[in-house]
Amino acid sequence: MQKRIYLDNNATTMVDPKVKELMEPFFCEHYGNPNSLHKFGTEIHPAISDAFNKLYEGINAQNEDDVIITSCATESNNWVLKGVYFDKIYTGEKNHIITTEVEHPAVGATCRFLETLGVKVTYLPINKEGTISAQQVREAITPKTALVSIMWANNETGLIFPIEEIGAICKEAGILFHTDAVQAIGKIPVDVVKANVDFLSFSAHKFHGPKGIGALYIRKGVELTPLLHGGEHMRGRRSGTLNVPYIIGMGEAMKLASQGLDYEYKVVAKLRDKLEDALLKIDDVFVIGDRAHRVPNTTLISVRGIEGEAMLWDLNKSGIAASTGSACASEDLEANPVMVAIGADKELAHTAIRLSLSRFNTEEEIDYTIDVFKKAIERLRNISSSYRA
Amino acid sequence: MQKRIYLDNNATTMVDPKVKELMEPFFCEHYGNPNSLHKFGTEIHPAISDAFNKLYEGINAQNEDDVIITSCATESNNWVLKGVYFDKIYTGEKNHIITTEVEHPAVGATCRFLETLGVKVTYLPINKEGTISAQQVREAITPKTALVSIMWANNETGLIFPIEEIGAICKEAGILFHTDAVQAIGKIPVDVVKANVDFLSFSAHKFHGPKGIGALYIRKGVELTPLLHGGEHMRGRRSGTLNVPYIIGMGEAMKLASQGLDYEYKVVAKLRDKLEDALLKIDDVFVIGDRAHRVPNTTLISVRGIEGEAMLWDLNKSGIAASTGSACASEDLEANPVMVAIGADKELAHTAIRLSLSRFNTEEEIDYTIDVFKKAIERLRNISSSYRA
Ligand SMILES: Cc1ncc(COP(=O)(O)O)c(C=O)c1O
Ligand SMILES: Cc1ncc(COP(=O)(O)O)c(C=O)c1O
Repeated sequence: MQKRIYLDNNATTMVDPKVKELMEPFFCEHYGNPNSLHKFGTEIHPAISDAFNKLYEGINAQNEDDVIITSCATESNNWVLKGVYFDKIYTGEKNHIITTEVEHPAVGATCRFLETLGVKVTYLPINKEGTISAQQVREAITPKTALVSIMWANNETGLIFPIEEIGAICKEAGILFHTDAVQAIGKIPVDVVKANVDFLSFSAHKFHGPKGIGALYIRKGVELTPLLHGGEHMRGRRSGTLNVPYIIGMGEAMKLASQGLDYEYKVVAKLRDKLEDALLKIDDVFVIGDRAHRVPNTTLISVRGIEGEAMLWDLNKSGIAASTGSACASEDLEANPVMVAIGADKELAHTAIRLSLSRFNTEEEIDYTIDVFKKAIERLRNISSSYRA
Repeated sequence: MQKRIYLDNNATTMVDPKVKELMEPFFCEHYGNPNSLHKFGTEIHPAISDAFNKLYEGINAQNEDDVIITSCATESNNWVLKGVYFDKIYTGEKNHIITTEVEHPAVGATCRFLETLGVKVTYLPINKEGTISAQQVREAITPKTALVSIMWANNETGLIFPIEEIGAICKEAGILFHTDAVQAIGKIPVDVVKANVDFLSFSAHKFHGPKGIGALYIRKGVELTPLLHGGEHMRGRRSGTLNVPYIIGMGEAMKLASQGLDYEYKVVAKLRDKLEDALLKIDDVFVIGDRAHRVPNTTLISVRGIEGEAMLWDLNKSGIAASTGSACASEDLEANPVMVAIGADKELAHTAIRLSLSRFNTEEEIDYTIDVFKKAIERLRNISSSYRA
């Protein structure tokens, strides 16, 4: 049988079988609408409460805060940006949003849409290390700044941004602060209190929950015009019939993610490092971003002389799933956007391969991957027109 | 064991076990992101295509039309209204939307939000029969009308609105037409070509698919500013990682719904009629809306002298799930909005009980329900302060 080695966990993850098991009864047995007054509705309440407790605990949300279920982080991100637009910018009070050049398109494309409505957006550039400094944020703030939206960890490089420092700056300046924590949850500790965030987005399928459900954390008392108007679901913040199985699944996935943080650092990081170290021994192979500032599972590797897509195919033929960048961009063969932002030359920017591990990967898989990767480099460099060792 | 009789299928439905079965492999085995280039991504494509084919067939969408996956009809409805706002109203071209007084809050509350942005909204009143006429729409149209949004079938009464006629009027006038078909799919034939709609919303959980997934049909060539900006998912119309299991489930649910239309008319309608006829024999019991103009599964019953909630509790104690109205409103004890719109007196408007059947109900269940219902009426009228026979 062909090997199946999944090293694309920043794109999406396997649903943990424990998560699946917990969702099971809520499709064909306990299928009521939790908003209904009868038993089919009310019998679901304990499982839903339990799920919310796990979500609140996972990010250290306080009782009075809201954790609102959405359909994905894309929705959460759109909601924050468009909600703040209606609350603070449409009204004429403010006119400015600060973000980075390397946000996920769910933030980036939404900001570009808001620009068409007259919003001024500052896209902070990343430095050569692939990250931004809190000082850059401080300098970009104007009296008209409504919102700062900066990701916790980058999906391409795994680099962690200085969220706590930025949170402190925003708090001091009285500016709303949103972080897209999609790539942080389950990989590093995420604490909304310490980070001083007003809004935080996540998506269950990035931490072994199901695809198509996410959440937006909203700090106590912070208003936000809904993106989905309607009935009075979710305290009036987000309408739509609740996705009961997935809420229960996301809760469990969050619990397992928090419990597994130790394992991420002790085991997953070791596997990633082993892989990285082996590949770095090859000539003209580079890794983007200092390991100490990255989440434990991610490595973005550049192999001079080899197009990322060519490498992808070779790996794929051997049953290894990797990526040339975020899944949403991977259908077009563009340069890796973070590589470009870092200032890599054009040729190098096309060579990026992202390998992102999870707690389900084994050492045997990593050894096999190292082997396949080495052979692929040899083969592809031999037929490369541009590479000369 | 306590009986479990579910007669609240307009609130939500059981996932059909066949739907569940088809979704199974896509949680823990075939868990890739379909946007990924490797095998974990591409191996999912056939099942996704298959699901889309079923969705297109179910509503007779044409190849060049778009059926865009959303997280629910609430999202679809918000998207149409807010998208048209940005496309036609924000630009100054138009300023007016026509809808009805009895839309679901996902339309109603969104319209009220748009009014705060300066949009003029006409809320057509329903007539004593509980429906609206195409003529009312024709008369409400102005040169500034951007959109007509009218539901296909009402969630409370099951009454069917004259969508084909309204579609023809809108087409003639060159006005975009949206219908919320949530309560029509799986109950009556829905054909986007015949109905001349530009947009059509539905939610899988109303036809034995999973909760938390829906779609928006968009006629070929019709532009609509996205509600969820981001990557290039869904031809750039709606971003967010695809909910693979639910897309596959919704496709199958749609197929089963189309195949089951005959059964709805031949069996489900008969059961509903049996229930209704038995209850109508009791003094001062009314049914809202002519049976010939209703979907086959719904009956909205008014029992003079008995608060809807009181009846709900009695039914619930006997294991029967019913509703006093739409699930999203049922947490507060308000008068039934459609009863109010019809012009029922205030006391009567509080007595409404909605019974909504599905293909999973049996004659035995209906007989039992008739029995319980009769006894409940007797008991509750005996202790009623207001009712004197
Ligand atoms: C940093 C980041 N934000 C947001 C998203 C969007 O997540 P979803 O597709 O679940 O909405 C992703 C996933 O690609 C991501 O990596
Ligand atoms: C007519 C109608 N429209 C829209 C909706 C909203 O569906 P969902 O909650 O799945 O978004 C409902 C469900 O209550 C409905 O009955």
